[in-house]
Amino acid sequence: MNPKEPGRRRFLKNSAVLAGLAVGAMQPANAQSPPEEGSGAGAKDAHAYGQRSRFETSVRYGAMGLYDTAPPGWHRDFGLRTPIQDSVGIITPASLHFYIAHGYEPPDIDPSEHKLLIHGMVDKPLILSMDDLKRLPSVTRVHFLECNANGAPAGPTGQFRDVPTATAQDTHGYTSCSMWTGVPLSILLEKAGVQADAKWIIGEGSEKGKHTKSIPIEKAMEDVLVAYGQNGEALRPQQGYPIRLLVPGWEGINNVKWLRRIKLVKEPYMGMWESTKYPSLRSDGLSRWFQFEMGPRTVITRPSGGQKLPGPGFYEISGLAWSGGGVVRKIEVSTDNGKTWKEAEVQSPVTPKAHVRFGFGWEWNGEETILQSRCTDERGDQQPTVAELAKFWKVEPEFFKITGTIPGHFNAIQPWKINRDGGVENAISF
Amino acid sequence: MNPKEPGRRRFLKNSAVLAGLAVGAMQPANAQSPPEEGSGAGAKDAHAYGQRSRFETSVRYGAMGLYDTAPPGWHRDFGLRTPIQDSVGIITPASLHFYIAHGYEPPDIDPSEHKLLIHGMVDKPLILSMDDLKRLPSVTRVHFLECNANGAPAGPTGQFRDVPTATAQDTHGYTSCSMWTGVPLSILLEKAGVQADAKWIIGEGSEKGKHTKSIPIEKAMEDVLVAYGQNGEALRPQQGYPIRLLVPGWEGINNVKWLRRIKLVKEPYMGMWESTKYPSLRSDGLSRWFQFEMGPRTVITRPSGGQKLPGPGFYEISGLAWSGGGVVRKIEVSTDNGKTWKEAEVQSPVTPKAHVRFGFGWEWNGEETILQSRCTDERGDQQPTVAELAKFWKVEPEFFKITGTIPGHFNAIQPWKINRDGGVENAISF
Repeated sequence: MNPKEPGRRRFLKNSAVLAGLAVGAMQPANAQSPPEEGSGAGAKDAHAYGQRSRFETSVRYGAMGLYDTAPPGWHRDFGLRTPIQDSVGIITPASLHFYIAHGYEPPDIDPSEHKLLIHGMVDKPLILSMDDLKRLPSVTRVHFLECNANGAPAGPTGQFRDVPTATAQDTHGYTSCSMWTGVPLSILLEKAGVQADAKWIIGEGSEKGKHTKSIPIEKAMEDVLVAYGQNGEALRPQQGYPIRLLVPGWEGINNVKWLRRIKLVKEPYMGMWESTKYPSLRSDGLSRWFQFEMGPRTVITRPSGGQKLPGPGFYEISGLAWSGGGVVRKIEVSTDNGKTWKEAEVQSPVTPKAHVRFGFGWEWNGEETILQSRCTDERGDQQPTVAELAKFWKVEPEFFKITGTIPGHFNAIQPWKINRDGGVENAISF
Repeated sequence: MNPKEPGRRRFLKNSAVLAGLAVGAMQPANAQSPPEEGSGAGAKDAHAYGQRSRFETSVRYGAMGLYDTAPPGWHRDFGLRTPIQDSVGIITPASLHFYIAHGYEPPDIDPSEHKLLIHGMVDKPLILSMDDLKRLPSVTRVHFLECNANGAPAGPTGQFRDVPTATAQDTHGYTSCSMWTGVPLSILLEKAGVQADAKWIIGEGSEKGKHTKSIPIEKAMEDVLVAYGQNGEALRPQQGYPIRLLVPGWEGINNVKWLRRIKLVKEPYMGMWESTKYPSLRSDGLSRWFQFEMGPRTVITRPSGGQKLPGPGFYEISGLAWSGGGVVRKIEVSTDNGKTWKEAEVQSPVTPKAHVRFGFGWEWNGEETILQSRCTDERGDQQPTVAELAKFWKVEPEFFKITGTIPGHFNAIQPWKINRDGGVENAISF
């Protein structure tokens, strides 16, 4: 979208980062102490299936099932959050993909035993094995998955009370992006023969809770996948092994994991989750049901909350943008708390309903300031400020903090404050 | 490139795969035994950093350092081969990326101590820490890496004697593809100020052998990266942690891992590997030196050697195509041993010097046949047959089998024979 040149010229012209590094009397290259060999990465298991460096400590946190990987004092949450502040590029490693399954551990499914049933209002019900699925035409597409609660403000009450909001992992760790491979659901539905009155599909998982989700037939025929691959290998158990629904751009809850059944029906099921936690409470006491699409959103991942700039000079501001509405068309960054905005550079493949990496060359003068980012998608929808979002919901901004329900679909602009000492803090206010 | 529709229509029209699956009296969905919970994937470690299913057994094989993960009787090779026959999409998981380091285990580098020195014929030598590098403008790009020996025929003599050639992992397991993130080397070189007489860069690694490689300055300025990210996280130790050179489209040996030094020089160094194993022996007894670019190539991964088709009916033939010459423009498949060729469908993002996934809908009639694939890149270069490749090298085809040296850059069309019982065999001949 944008040429690389502007940022590059900015860097070459202004850069202070290398100023102290030009060396007169150089350290000889061989003065570096020889690295130790035979580390963990050289172990035999790591030869069959490689591991990361022992110096890499970026991990998910949260709570699932029996275990709590959250920092001390953290609210017992439903899921594991992606360390998005450490991300590079647009792909989330499967090992770090966020994980929410409403408290359930992944079932231990043997793929040779697994079957997918497609039935209900169809002419010819189907039962498909994994081998059957893998013989069919497949596609590979980059798509983000985002929980509708991603970035829900932490108020004094409600589900997200006491959730910290210091880092990008806290505030935006419920989005991830993968290269998914699978069979277009439309192919299976056409083969089964969808009857004229069938207006919804109900996807059902294999986990203990048997999660079900109602999805309109139009979306099912448009771009939904029965996915068996993620980032070049089989889905991971926490991502639905051996198959899941992949419903591009829509709330994470639609993407039914450990998929075992698709039923064609006339009316939605009003399943437990879609009729309780996932609607949004309105200010008049009623609820919005079946909100599917995730709005346009960005987050600056570097620098972001909890990080520290070593001193003034050149920094590339780096972040992610995405929209359930399609392709991200424009990404802007403000380095003066929203007074002025400049277009950022897009640094990676740009595909619809996927994370897009942006960069913005910035010369920090050492003064306190606030960084912000926003995007606009192919429909012209622009990521809102907190005030704009409150107006859309017809509430006062304070309302976001005092309920645990409405903050779903909270896609407001995220401001990060840079302190004089280089420390970075969350500067959102309501 | 190609619309998905033809393959899809072919499937919907001809498919026999689902014929036996249409059910009258269906198995009730809840008749499936409930899956066991609390598996390995639910363990606490797997919450911080996820793991794959215990049912997934796709692994690399080969030999490195102290360990041998090769099947019994396998020649002790230098590296670990990617299980390309199990791949989906275009990305190779970092855990399964092929690994060759001429016998050396990865050094155990602490990134906070690591430095990159850029010196030699420059105006201003630089020493960069990892933190310095991460402040600079970065890009993310999809590129394959391929060893020049990938698919080298196994003759009775030479380095590749006794290497099996039954599976796609045997024959094509020395290519992998990742989404790499790093700083364009051109930015660093411009900052250092390259002097007019500097015509080559020498990259040097940190491993015990201190691998060095000479690369022309034109390439260094064109698209080479100093990469620190792979598939969304830090490079793995086996891939050069914390930094490597990424030299798109060129022989793997150029992509210096554990990079610690770049020297600007007037003439190439004629380092050990570039002057011994990596030149190609010619039929007149002389050698070709400095062969950089990998040629256009494809391999059908499914069905491929060692796999078995369960019976006649519809199959999507799936495979990978790539070229060091740029974008893959056309991919063709033959299901009649090369008598006729039809264009395949491209199923994934198509970017230059990257793996591209192709699919081809095929109705197998149960008769013996041979499947082949070939591609043409943006320059019009087409993947050759064995006979065409022999002509190019001015040798008889038998010559490929009797030397361990010339088979580098062996990119001939790979034929897979389908037997009547559905078994798949390597059908290459010289």
